[in-house]
Amino acid sequence: MSSIGFVGPGIMGAPMITNLVAAGHQVLAYGRSEMSCTRILAAGAQVAGSPAEVADGADLVITMLPDTPDVEDVLGTGGLAAALMPGQIFVDMSTIRPDTTRDIHHSLAERGIMMLDAPVSGGEAAAHEGTLSIMVGGEASALDEAREVLECLGATITHVGPAGAGQLTKAANQLIVAANIQAVSEAIVLLESAGADLTSALAAINGGLAGSTVLTRKREAFINGSFEPGFRITLHNKDLRIVCSAADGAGIALPMTALVSQLMVAAVAQGLGHLDHSALLTLIRTCNSSH
Amino acid sequence: MSSIGFVGPGIMGAPMITNLVAAGHQVLAYGRSEMSCTRILAAGAQVAGSPAEVADGADLVITMLPDTPDVEDVLGTGGLAAALMPGQIFVDMSTIRPDTTRDIHHSLAERGIMMLDAPVSGGEAAAHEGTLSIMVGGEASALDEAREVLECLGATITHVGPAGAGQLTKAANQLIVAANIQAVSEAIVLLESAGADLTSALAAINGGLAGSTVLTRKREAFINGSFEPGFRITLHNKDLRIVCSAADGAGIALPMTALVSQLMVAAVAQGLGHLDHSALLTLIRTCNSSH
Amino acid sequence: MSSIGFVGPGIMGAPMITNLVAAGHQVLAYGRSEMSCTRILAAGAQVAGSPAEVADGADLVITMLPDTPDVEDVLGTGGLAAALMPGQIFVDMSTIRPDTTRDIHHSLAERGIMMLDAPVSGGEAAAHEGTLSIMVGGEASALDEAREVLECLGATITHVGPAGAGQLTKAANQLIVAANIQAVSEAIVLLESAGADLTSALAAINGGLAGSTVLTRKREAFINGSFEPGFRITLHNKDLRIVCSAADGAGIALPMTALVSQLMVAAVAQGLGHLDHSALLTLIRTCNSSH
Amino acid sequence: MSSIGFVGPGIMGAPMITNLVAAGHQVLAYGRSEMSCTRILAAGAQVAGSPAEVADGADLVITMLPDTPDVEDVLGTGGLAAALMPGQIFVDMSTIRPDTTRDIHHSLAERGIMMLDAPVSGGEAAAHEGTLSIMVGGEASALDEAREVLECLGATITHVGPAGAGQLTKAANQLIVAANIQAVSEAIVLLESAGADLTSALAAINGGLAGSTVLTRKREAFINGSFEPGFRITLHNKDLRIVCSAADGAGIALPMTALVSQLMVAAVAQGLGHLDHSALLTLIRTCNSSH
Repeated sequence: MSSIGFVGPGIMGAPMITNLVAAGHQVLAYGRSEMSCTRILAAGAQVAGSPAEVADGADLVITMLPDTPDVEDVLGTGGLAAALMPGQIFVDMSTIRPDTTRDIHHSLAERGIMMLDAPVSGGEAAAHEGTLSIMVGGEASALDEAREVLECLGATITHVGPAGAGQLTKAANQLIVAANIQAVSEAIVLLESAGADLTSALAAINGGLAGSTVLTRKREAFINGSFEPGFRITLHNKDLRIVCSAADGAGIALPMTALVSQLMVAAVAQGLGHLDHSALLTLIRTCNSSH
Repeated sequence: MSSIGFVGPGIMGAPMITNLVAAGHQVLAYGRSEMSCTRILAAGAQVAGSPAEVADGADLVITMLPDTPDVEDVLGTGGLAAALMPGQIFVDMSTIRPDTTRDIHHSLAERGIMMLDAPVSGGEAAAHEGTLSIMVGGEASALDEAREVLECLGATITHVGPAGAGQLTKAANQLIVAANIQAVSEAIVLLESAGADLTSALAAINGGLAGSTVLTRKREAFINGSFEPGFRITLHNKDLRIVCSAADGAGIALPMTALVSQLMVAAVAQGLGHLDHSALLTLIRTCNSSH
Repeated sequence: MSSIGFVGPGIMGAPMITNLVAAGHQVLAYGRSEMSCTRILAAGAQVAGSPAEVADGADLVITMLPDTPDVEDVLGTGGLAAALMPGQIFVDMSTIRPDTTRDIHHSLAERGIMMLDAPVSGGEAAAHEGTLSIMVGGEASALDEAREVLECLGATITHVGPAGAGQLTKAANQLIVAANIQAVSEAIVLLESAGADLTSALAAINGGLAGSTVLTRKREAFINGSFEPGFRITLHNKDLRIVCSAADGAGIALPMTALVSQLMVAAVAQGLGHLDHSALLTLIRTCNSSH
Repeated sequence: MSSIGFVGPGIMGAPMITNLVAAGHQVLAYGRSEMSCTRILAAGAQVAGSPAEVADGADLVITMLPDTPDVEDVLGTGGLAAALMPGQIFVDMSTIRPDTTRDIHHSLAERGIMMLDAPVSGGEAAAHEGTLSIMVGGEASALDEAREVLECLGATITHVGPAGAGQLTKAANQLIVAANIQAVSEAIVLLESAGADLTSALAAINGGLAGSTVLTRKREAFINGSFEPGFRITLHNKDLRIVCSAADGAGIALPMTALVSQLMVAAVAQGLGHLDHSALLTLIRTCNSSH
């Protein structure tokens, strides 16, 4: 049984806290909004007065926040970084920029604090079921210590490399998902142009080398045009900004990534941001029809 | 038991003939090269002296040829079209241009001959095992008659729409495969830039929404850089020419398809054409390294 | 003074005939429509009854037709190819596919007939003024003989290489124009996002290394959103099909060309085909705004 | 006659100081390196001990620095921002991020200090000749006061809009130049594939709607493959990072910009960074040839 500090009881974070408490861990959590308090208490955890406070007596501190600046705020202005003590492990499960992640790793390491970057995939459903896929970057020894806690949250916990590698793997994941959705969307527009039966054609396609989890899970959405999220285009757009900035930082040209990234920006600009990312189909259809 | 005419006893066609004979069908086949004769006899079929001859007494005539001009040649110069009789069914299992396919459908239909366009996926292995995935365009009634024969060749036979829809579905399939390979290749270059552990990162990625048959089947090739075909880049390039020409014909803009299609052309230009299509990874690596 | 056969008295062709007649040449011309007759007579030329007939007694035969199949029709079904005699020079001033051009060159050469491919730029205005820019592919000796006639039509006549090189140079020209229009359009969308003064910003840009004839001639159209043609998007789209097919035939990857080509297709699909090609600006604006 | 503070006596900055002194202005300048001192003295100006010091008694302070962080450093750590006094005008002639520029404008405005963002085009030669093209963002009244000084440096001084509009116009300029170079490069590869005569084909192209300053000034470089800078690929790459980040910040999708930006990254990755930006031609040639 561990003492766990937690910042970020949101749509993903709240069910994660519930799972930690259910596994017998003691959780002290902080959230900015009033609703956060309600969520924390409902999850069976205790409410902290500030980000810094959650570090108090914790074996492990977890953050689960929307974007890079949120993590920087909680650590800096929120005082969490200063409050962390040697021997404690800091696990950032947010999806943020790999370069920022590496900076945080290094500045904490100088003070004897080990960090893991541990972004997740699987979405809200997997957060509730405790079946997230967790991609972990950082020292293997830190993961050894944190593994028991992370196993309450995820079905697979994969050590993918040094500091930042978790974030980079998540970035790679998000670029593949976006490219896949776009590829299937273009295929659908092509199929429709010839009066092909979409349901049977996609079934045939999914049975061969073109098969994918995107096609399996999103086929109904594509066929019915039902794009309730799921995973919002605005969030995927944010993640692709991270991908592009990581590629930029590494001086790597990724032409397909750059293209799908522009298409995601256009989807947001066209007011599709609140829809599931499978609505890239709407964008390419609009692109090919008069208004 | 049917009488079957067959043109094209190549790498794919020869094992298909074997499977037809094994199922008890009588097969009369034609191939241009000397090796063709050997293959036809080895498969237990009889050798015809010309493409036209295979139609003689056939219930069903199958073609399995490399490219659009080959099918046109066999039907025109080879005399097969003229030799086909009302009541016979013509099944073209080659991967060719959908517009040409529709032209052939229509000109045969005027003479009372039903045609199916029935391109396949699954490759050489599936051709041997009789487990091809067959995408069929044309009249449902024609497929009803041909189905028993096609079931000797494929594990799934899907009617995907009217004349040309089979070819278009195959085209859609090939664009998704190419985009997927490119997306995974870009992800790998990104992962390598951060020293991520490729084996574990790709495993984690394949477990979530980014998972795909490409990632499952080609992961080893990507990791080890072993690009023996498999499916050659030159062939995939030919298929993407078909995709682009189909989109062109329909007046549809498919930006990601256009991009990956250019990358496939560049791969051929760089001398990678004889390698498996997963060698798009080599292209993007070359693109990002000094020579 | 020469005897000239002419096929294609259209928007470009009619004023070209007028200029030839004004220079003292004898012109026998053919056009398909009733309006063609009127135009030919108004230009001071004589009307032929068929494409073949214009070759009768001609020193030089000129075609100025909309697209590749039109040239093929006039030469084949129209009988012009068969009617041409050794010693006559055939000058195709249409913008068509370089590979078709080369085929025609070769089949005429076998019969002792020299051909020039001589597409033009400059548009309707330059056709009237006789100031077209003419890009000529073929034998230098053929150009020597044809030059005096071509000088009635164009201000600059440039020999750019062997058979097909004229068409390829025109193709290269059209890809640069399209890319330029798209680049300026993207620049404008960027400038508008920051409230920059478009008129002064474009003036400043045009004064430096980013300056271009597109920016000089189309600036007003861009600023005022007045997209009457000029050169129609449908025509530029046709020309970009030629560019892509030429690149395809040569096995060359041209990524930016492929992209702008898709954008031109999308512009047509969105119903902008009748507007001037500078209306690519409308496309990128639409792409970035909610409807 | 004005008192001018100047930070950044580099390849561009040094001849600018010379021109200011020649026009009778009193210049106090700071540079980090030892060579800076030599350059400042050679230009006839006085040497300051720190960035902050140049503000002392100045009517106008000019910075001409390589990149965004350099300007931030000089203003922050270097103490220049704190040293500026109400009534002084700050003119940043560096090419930096528009969002950073706007932040600096606003924070200086709060203290009564007016700022102009005034990036230039024209390169080293124009800096020496005092014929730079200067794109100015900020208050018109500030430009009124600074104009006489700027006229010693540039041939055209254009007020293009509010704070940041100067940087954005420069960004727009750089994206057009890059797209133009890439378009011409792709055209050249296409022309070479058909054995066209490059010199005459480019001359013909430059005479029509495809004409551009890039084609005029860089034609020799393209034809001879002589890519000594001029303007380095590394610098253009930096500028395209600014363009992409400005588009990102504004939520605008610019597909062609994104593509050419990836090509510039690839050029750097392939070790071409030290060459003139016209060496994008080398990239597309490499892309289309086996090694």
